This record gives sequence, C-alpha cells and structure tokens, in this order.
Amino acid sequence: MPFIDKLHAAQSSANSRVCVGLDPDPARMPHHLLVGTPIDDAVVHFNTAIIEATQSSACAFKLNLAFYEALGAVGYRVLKRTIDLVPEGKVVIADGKRGDIGNSARMYSRAVFEKLDCDACTVAPYMGEDAVAPFLRYPDRAAFVLARTSNPSSSDFQERHIDGQPLYLEVARKTQEWDHDAPGTAGLVVGATQPESIQEIRGACPDLPLLLPGVGAQGGDPVKAVEAGTKGGSLVLINSSRSIIYASEGKHFARYAAEAAEELRQQLVLA
Amino acid sequence: MPFIDKLHAAQSSANSRVCVGLDPDPARMPHHLLVGTPIDDAVVHFNTAIIEATQSSACAFKLNLAFYEALGAVGYRVLKRTIDLVPEGKVVIADGKRGDIGNSARMYSRAVFEKLDCDACTVAPYMGEDAVAPFLRYPDRAAFVLARTSNPSSSDFQERHIDGQPLYLEVARKTQEWDHDAPGTAGLVVGATQPESIQEIRGACPDLPLLLPGVGAQGGDPVKAVEAGTKGGSLVLINSSRSIIYASEGKHFARYAAEAAEELRQQLVLA
Repeated sequence: MPFIDKLHAAQSSANSRVCVGLDPDPARMPHHLLVGTPIDDAVVHFNTAIIEATQSSACAFKLNLAFYEALGAVGYRVLKRTIDLVPEGKVVIADGKRGDIGNSARMYSRAVFEKLDCDACTVAPYMGEDAVAPFLRYPDRAAFVLARTSNPSSSDFQERHIDGQPLYLEVARKTQEWDHDAPGTAGLVVGATQPESIQEIRGACPDLPLLLPGVGAQGGDPVKAVEAGTKGGSLVLINSSRSIIYASEGKHFARYAAEAAEELRQQLVLA
Repeated sequence: MPFIDKLHAAQSSANSRVCVGLDPDPARMPHHLLVGTPIDDAVVHFNTAIIEATQSSACAFKLNLAFYEALGAVGYRVLKRTIDLVPEGKVVIADGKRGDIGNSARMYSRAVFEKLDCDACTVAPYMGEDAVAPFLRYPDRAAFVLARTSNPSSSDFQERHIDGQPLYLEVARKTQEWDHDAPGTAGLVVGATQPESIQEIRGACPDLPLLLPGVGAQGGDPVKAVEAGTKGGSLVLINSSRSIIYASEGKHFARYAAEAAEELRQQLVLA
C-alpha cells in the first residue's frame, strides 16, 4: 500500500492527526520503572505503556533514533522491540535525519525500511538529491525531508535567502520535484513553531504530506499549525513527544500520557 | 588530550595524512570471507584484516555508520568491535552526519563520544548551531561539520549564494565562530573533489582541521586537495574508503589495501 494511503487510513480510523514521539530518556522516565530493572527492559516497559495508552488517540508513532543510540549496545534491540509493539495500521516513522552521498544513503534506506521495517523516515537535505533519492525508491514508504525545523537556530541557514527566497522554501520546492519521479514517496518536516512557513510551504507543495513537530515542549500552537498545513493541501501530522510521554513522572504516567494525547487529538479532529 | 593534539600526534607518528574509511559492504567484500561465516563475524574479519594491513600508513580510521546500520541487529556489535580493533593513538571518526535539535543532538553526542568512545564525528549543519553545539562540549573530542560535500548534488544547495557568498562558505564561517567558544572542538568536511572550495574555506577558517573525503572512487585529486587545504592553514585529513578497502576482492585483498593506503600516504607526506 502506498505510504500516503496508509497514512490516510490510519488518520481516518483513529480520527486523528496525532503522531506520538517515542523519545525515551531514562533521566525523565518514571523512577519506579528503573529500579532493579535492566535499562533495556525499563525503556521497553515505558514505551509499551505509552503505546498502549495513546494508540486510540494516535495515527502514528515517531521514534527519534538519537534516544535509542544514546542507550549504547542495547539501543538497537530496544528500538526493534518498540517498533514491533506498534499496532498494525499505525504509521511508524524512524526519525534519524540521515543524509549522505548516494552510496551511503542507500545503506541508510536499507537500515530504516528493510531492517527496521518503518513506514517512513526523516532525511536531511544539505547534500542535495543524492542524499534523498535512495529513500524515494521504496514505493510503499516515504521520506520526510527537513525543510523548516522547529528549533531556535533553524534561522542560521534555513531562513537565509537564495535567489530571493528562503533556503527552506527552495528545499521544499526541490523535494516536490524529486517526488514527481516517484509520487507519494516524499514529505516535508516543517516546525509547528512557524505557522507562516507552513502556509508558505503548503502553497508551494500542495501534494506533499507534512510532518509538523514542535508543539508542546517547543511551544508551537497545534491548531494554527494544522490550519496552515491544510489550506489548499492534504495530509498533515502533528508530532508531540515530551508533553505526552512525560506528562507525568509518577506511577500513573500512562494515564496522563493518554489524556495529553487525547486532548491533542480532539483539538485537531479531521474535517 | 585535546583532539587537535591527538590528531597531530597520530599524523606525526605515522608521517601520514591518510584516513582509511571502514565502510564494509558485504556485496563487495571478498567472497571467501563470507562463505559459511555469520555476517557479523565476516565483517569483523574483513575490518580486522584492513586495519592490520593499513595501520602503518594511516593516522585515522573513519567508520561510516550507514554501513553498520544496514547490517541490522548485528550492526552495533560489529561497529563496537571494529572501534576496539583500532590501535591506540590512531584517531577514530564516527561518520554519521547527525543533526537534530539540541535535546536530540545531546543524545547523539552521547552515543558517539560516550558509548562508542570515538575521537570525532561528522555533523550536518542544516539545523544550525543547536544541532552542532552539543558535540562541541567535549573538550577532547571534535565534530567535523559538513561544509562542501564531495557528491555531485552538493551543488543543489551548498553552492547557492546567500548574501553574496555560497552557503558552504557561510556554514564554514559559522563553524569557525562556534569553535571560538570551545577552541579545537570543531572541524569541517570539504570534498576533495573541490580544491577551489577547499582553498576558499581554508582562507576563511585557518584554524579548523579539514576532513577531505572523495578521493579514489569519487575522483578527487588527493595532492591538489592537500595543497589547497594546507595553504595558510593547519591540519588536513584525506579520507579514502572504497579504493583502499576494495582494492581487490581476492584472497589477498589485505595486501592490496596495504599497498593502496601506503601509496596514498607517500603522495601526501607531511612537510
């Protein structure tokens, strides 16, 4: 099934645009999970509880690979076990922001799509088409290319103008071109902290699905972000990580996570 | 020991500017290593033979993380075992081109510097200072920031002009600024395929060590690259991967790798 269709089905069936970010940081996880438990089991328990608690409110789960790599030797196993926990029909995004020459990009695409069997991933555009194209060769998967990111220093380069337009818009337009060769395999990451950029990018790229991180801990307004992303365009996904998974650090953390995810879902119901 | 000092010592003691890229692709490895051997052991055997054969000609080894991730579940173990094989005193570079918001970049820096214990890594600049700064907090490590890469489509964005200069030069200048806060912790990646860019970047950033990939399979001229990188500046590292490690696919692959590395070393001896 093409990625776009899977995303559409996942959104319809949960009536949700919410993507829950599974970024497990042992320093922020509930203390009782960690006591007397190996770190890999503790993180898997945490992710299991979060996935079970939020799955009725979410259409997708995004795993930030940084948090798994930081676990060292057990990281890969935790990552794989977590991916296997996500229910059928939900979209799984490997958020690794990879980007390398074609030869290496093929290896990264094999890692996320073949070995980890994720539906989508995130890709960095700095090295140009060579770094993105290998990810677009999987007809039933997608790569979300970083356009305008949600962090404060995204302005260092992304906002700078080339040929009269900001770099992020040029990246978005190029991504739209690359998608023409393999329709439905590319998307864009646009920070929810920048609703004007979302609207501008949506105007230039009506067909690409948008992954919008940066609500919650990073301060983006999810309702404004979705409004901007759906004007004249199609699919948007709002990702929230910390404000859902760390809604509470107490015994009942999963219930608080469920409430935070459901509250976000209700703010963003499909039209 | 600051990274710069370690690199300097490694170069002096081997009289070499050669970095050998350990990018193990089972499809290109000698067939006899693979027969009847689990893939992880086969790759470790291959890397062991390459490291032993090339260590007298090399000051550094660069591990492209894509090739280890593409191995799936065994990738991390192979990566760790390979790092442990590199002799004391040689520089180890984790080439992952990571780049994410501060929170995640801290996790990536923990993964490469604390868990994998590498001396240096490569970092992508698209997200700006937030994505780089966490890597510069380790006084005895370094992050090589992608400026001008060696691949054909690097021109898609890196060559485009902002405020009258190419993006790659602006990235280089910013990296030099970031290094001021933590001297000796930042370097730059500049493709050896672009000697004019190397010279231009060296002019703007006299103090930063340069990692120059793209000789051999990618066609860069190593002598021109080193000339350009040392004019008015200091340390350069020339990386070659495929033309050394796949110099032969026969039984005596290690001997051919040794010859290729030694030949490159002799072309680039220190002044």
